[in-house]
Amino acid sequence: MTGADFVLGVDSGGSGLRAVLGAPAGPLGTTPLRTTLALSTPVRSKEPVRTGPRGIDARHLSKQLTPMVGQLLDEAGGGRIVAVAVGAAGMATLGDELRAELPSALAESYGVRRVALAADAVTAYAGALGQRPGVVVAAGTGLIAMGTDLTAWRRVDGWGHLLGDCGSGAWIGRAGLEAAMRAFDGREGGSAALRARAQEMFGEPLSGLPVQLYPRPDRPAVLAAFAPEVGRCAADGDPVAVRVLREAAGHIADAAVAARPADGACEVALTGGLLKLGDVLLDPLEAQLTERLPHARRVPAAGDPLDGAVRIALDLAADTLKLPHDPHLLYVTG
Amino acid sequence: MTGADFVLGVDSGGSGLRAVLGAPAGPLGTTPLRTTLALSTPVRSKEPVRTGPRGIDARHLSKQLTPMVGQLLDEAGGGRIVAVAVGAAGMATLGDELRAELPSALAESYGVRRVALAADAVTAYAGALGQRPGVVVAAGTGLIAMGTDLTAWRRVDGWGHLLGDCGSGAWIGRAGLEAAMRAFDGREGGSAALRARAQEMFGEPLSGLPVQLYPRPDRPAVLAAFAPEVGRCAADGDPVAVRVLREAAGHIADAAVAARPADGACEVALTGGLLKLGDVLLDPLEAQLTERLPHARRVPAAGDPLDGAVRIALDLAADTLKLPHDPHLLYVTG
Repeated sequence: MTGADFVLGVDSGGSGLRAVLGAPAGPLGTTPLRTTLALSTPVRSKEPVRTGPRGIDARHLSKQLTPMVGQLLDEAGGGRIVAVAVGAAGMATLGDELRAELPSALAESYGVRRVALAADAVTAYAGALGQRPGVVVAAGTGLIAMGTDLTAWRRVDGWGHLLGDCGSGAWIGRAGLEAAMRAFDGREGGSAALRARAQEMFGEPLSGLPVQLYPRPDRPAVLAAFAPEVGRCAADGDPVAVRVLREAAGHIADAAVAARPADGACEVALTGGLLKLGDVLLDPLEAQLTERLPHARRVPAAGDPLDGAVRIALDLAADTLKLPHDPHLLYVTG
Repeated sequence: MTGADFVLGVDSGGSGLRAVLGAPAGPLGTTPLRTTLALSTPVRSKEPVRTGPRGIDARHLSKQLTPMVGQLLDEAGGGRIVAVAVGAAGMATLGDELRAELPSALAESYGVRRVALAADAVTAYAGALGQRPGVVVAAGTGLIAMGTDLTAWRRVDGWGHLLGDCGSGAWIGRAGLEAAMRAFDGREGGSAALRARAQEMFGEPLSGLPVQLYPRPDRPAVLAAFAPEVGRCAADGDPVAVRVLREAAGHIADAAVAARPADGACEVALTGGLLKLGDVLLDPLEAQLTERLPHARRVPAAGDPLDGAVRIALDLAADTLKLPHDPHLLYVTG
């Protein structure tokens, strides 16, 4: 089995690992991203890569990746991997072991020398805007904005549910649950509608909510799971829910404004699960972005972080990678 | 050794266990609380009582309490315990095992039948206002307000750092750290002063703060440890810190308003470590309380939760307990 040359894109996050093979279908950048890149069907492992004392566990990632790559190459009828890009949540702060060990592990397994290890916010950027200057806000359970003028990155927020992630799913859900508890207490700022939704989700009385939330390791996800309820209450006109989403829109715009390239025109894209909240969030957000980023063109995200990983790997293979290298955000070997 | 009759007051919280003996020095309620109650010097165990699958671990509490009571009785020259009141953090939601097992354990150890098991917010109330109707806000790392008209309790907030505790030390510290991260990012709402304080406390660059905070089990305490810095920045005139404390004052007043007895005059007291922030918090808080609780008389707290436990035990011994019984907040046997 010899076959074609492929690149491998990998996305590692809280819900597991995804991997896909890519190969250029034509001259790079001439056709829309999704149709250019998606060669294989992605394969998944639902086990999130562990974090150990030295950060993201490189061996745990490699061990999960090996059978996934085997399956991808089998399905493609064999072939050779010429470049790999891995986007991982926590890469910026917890990527030391990955940067130290993963490139050599990939070289040993597949003979590949060109490897990019990227923060998931960078693969989100590449998936959304490719190699054009601009700002991408990735908003799901958490929230981070990445901007670049193709010289350097600007990383904004992404500090987690206690220090930031302002406007994220966890932020919106937390604010909604606080309003539910305020209604339960008869305090100012409460919402009977949000209280009713919280009771449906967590049971009555709501005084039982703390013991359901605090012992869990995935508290941000529990909070974010309530964000769609806030969206529904806002769509029904609940003023507290409407205010929460308006404030979230303001925070998301804060992040986009701080991450934008210093001068000139650029593009702004939003990506991530939070967009599913729909117009109740997007209408105030568009209004904020129009007002506060008048020189930025709003564009839809072309693809997701896995598309971005493939895109980076293809550019790496073709020696056309223009996104700025950075020891923590976009670490490149080979 | 026969000696006198004593009551035992116990306070169980996040920083360990405290116990003290009390005995009336005169007719109850005729002299200031502290001089009436404090017979012995309190003894401490710095090991917080464990929480197991059935809630607060009754045996762990008993085991720690036994030598403490032995020491107290020795120092008092011997005597008999005629009533016990235990105030415990988490009693309302995690007190099932304590209520099921502690009264019989105390009966076995000391022959005592009169036992009160109280939420720490109830002992805070009794310590601050004794048996008079009113509202007590206990504000430290967390925040809870208890109010009573001596018929029933009104419990407000105390839902923890993700669902409430609005205006608490963790709330103020979290808001301050968010403002520090906003300054680090160049986002709206940032404070250079708070950023500088956070860098002093957690090191530079502040992008290292998340990995210092999130893995810790005592995240609320870490957040609350930053509240004094917010206080100092506010005292220096930092507008963001001033706004955080003004909002905190509003939230504390929200809790007091919701917990107040339904009708008539009453007293309002504040207790807990948050008061140490001083005028930067207390000035806006007094303004809010004056405006929003015009019929409530602001009084200083007479004592702390341990004083409150002794007070409840004395009233229990004398058959004069007027504070409302409640299966979760003030559970009484004998």
